[in-house]
Amino acid sequence: MNVALITEYDGTDFVGFQSQKNGRAVYDVLSQALSQIYKEEVHLVGCSRTDAGVHARAHVSSVNVPFFIPEDKLPIAINSFLPDDLSVRRAVYVNDDFNARFDSRGKRYIYRLYSSSYRKPLIDRYAYHTTYKLDLEKMRRAGELLRGEHDFAAFCAAGSTAATTVRTVYSVNVFEKGDLIEIEVQGNAFLYNMVRIIAGTLLEAGYGKIDPETIPQILDSGDRRCAGRTLPPRGLTLEEVYYDWEKAKV
Amino acid sequence: MNVALITEYDGTDFVGFQSQKNGRAVYDVLSQALSQIYKEEVHLVGCSRTDAGVHARAHVSSVNVPFFIPEDKLPIAINSFLPDDLSVRRAVYVNDDFNARFDSRGKRYIYRLYSSSYRKPLIDRYAYHTTYKLDLEKMRRAGELLRGEHDFAAFCAAGSTAATTVRTVYSVNVFEKGDLIEIEVQGNAFLYNMVRIIAGTLLEAGYGKIDPETIPQILDSGDRRCAGRTLPPRGLTLEEVYYDWEKAKV
Repeated sequence: MNVALITEYDGTDFVGFQSQKNGRAVYDVLSQALSQIYKEEVHLVGCSRTDAGVHARAHVSSVNVPFFIPEDKLPIAINSFLPDDLSVRRAVYVNDDFNARFDSRGKRYIYRLYSSSYRKPLIDRYAYHTTYKLDLEKMRRAGELLRGEHDFAAFCAAGSTAATTVRTVYSVNVFEKGDLIEIEVQGNAFLYNMVRIIAGTLLEAGYGKIDPETIPQILDSGDRRCAGRTLPPRGLTLEEVYYDWEKAKV
Repeated sequence: MNVALITEYDGTDFVGFQSQKNGRAVYDVLSQALSQIYKEEVHLVGCSRTDAGVHARAHVSSVNVPFFIPEDKLPIAINSFLPDDLSVRRAVYVNDDFNARFDSRGKRYIYRLYSSSYRKPLIDRYAYHTTYKLDLEKMRRAGELLRGEHDFAAFCAAGSTAATTVRTVYSVNVFEKGDLIEIEVQGNAFLYNMVRIIAGTLLEAGYGKIDPETIPQILDSGDRRCAGRTLPPRGLTLEEVYYDWEKAKV
């Protein structure tokens, strides 16, 4: 039977979701815990890789398991084998053809940053520190112009193997929450480093290096060098992955 | 000249503020950074010790320094010698007789916790996880009954060397903020582990182990075993220390 696992993790000490030759991957830690329970090796399909250091509040994996454990008991059982920085929030039994990667209808990310003359250790683990003063209205305008279906080649890191660089961004919102500025990006799918480049572009719009009105030209250029820089992973959290759960559930 | 330094730190990897025979103390890391700048050993007076693992958003130290560096430049200079988990927010030149410990008029702490069937790695570093469902009204009632001047012997860990166990608690508030429950405690001064024991007592009131109406009897007993348990340091943050800054500033 097929089960979807919604996991939360602090990405700081992970090399990302996917197994790597070296380093501690979420995939490995999670599949090892599952092997302890099911007494056999299991194979996970993740909704997305997530780079080293990127956090997730609701990453989704699907996995075929050999026997039934009730949905409310399964997270507790798995969590008893997991370290402090990884946790299963929820388990949902799904149809055999459900695939966490291919059935995703979109994702919601938040890139957090804070503007301050000094580093703030109590938020620094999950947010990027900038000493620039930021104009949120300019950041919002840049975000607005990124919305829609575009060729995001200019917002894609080198080394991407995507067949097409056309993606649809549903929305880019900028919120102020206490000390934090949250850049929320929703879209159908994302290119390699795309959200971190969008965040870097909004940051540069916020302190005046990029004129928000030039966003259409940056998109048209298809040139990575025209967009803002890639912000570090610490500020990025995968917040939500969208599925048609009603259709997926058994 | 005498300067007050307001510091923020993530307490996870510190043994507390005060130097210890073993382990990494805030005092040591901060005074070493100052020695780099002033080219001589300096002696800090901290507003409070803070236990191993306890965080601070605005800890205050006073220190005599041999020469003047402008208030706006000093934090930047010190921070260039500090690790990621410790930062100087602000520097204020104060009268020679200012003492961060003895001139404090009170402190504000917040103990954060969250109630959930599963651990949440993205908030777990700064909050205590409980699987109990909590009745916030009962927690608020317990907090209300702790307000005022009382003998807090029942809320003091063994090993305290305080001359008297009478303290004044100005307020105990319970807030809900997203996933977090915040227990905010303000008082003139605190006994060893007092805030963590207050938090443990409110937690037990919240899930029904302690009847909030028995708080006066717990106080009267003077017996540590009558109050709730000491919650772990991770949930505790020293948020603010009160001084008469107008009088203190040079």
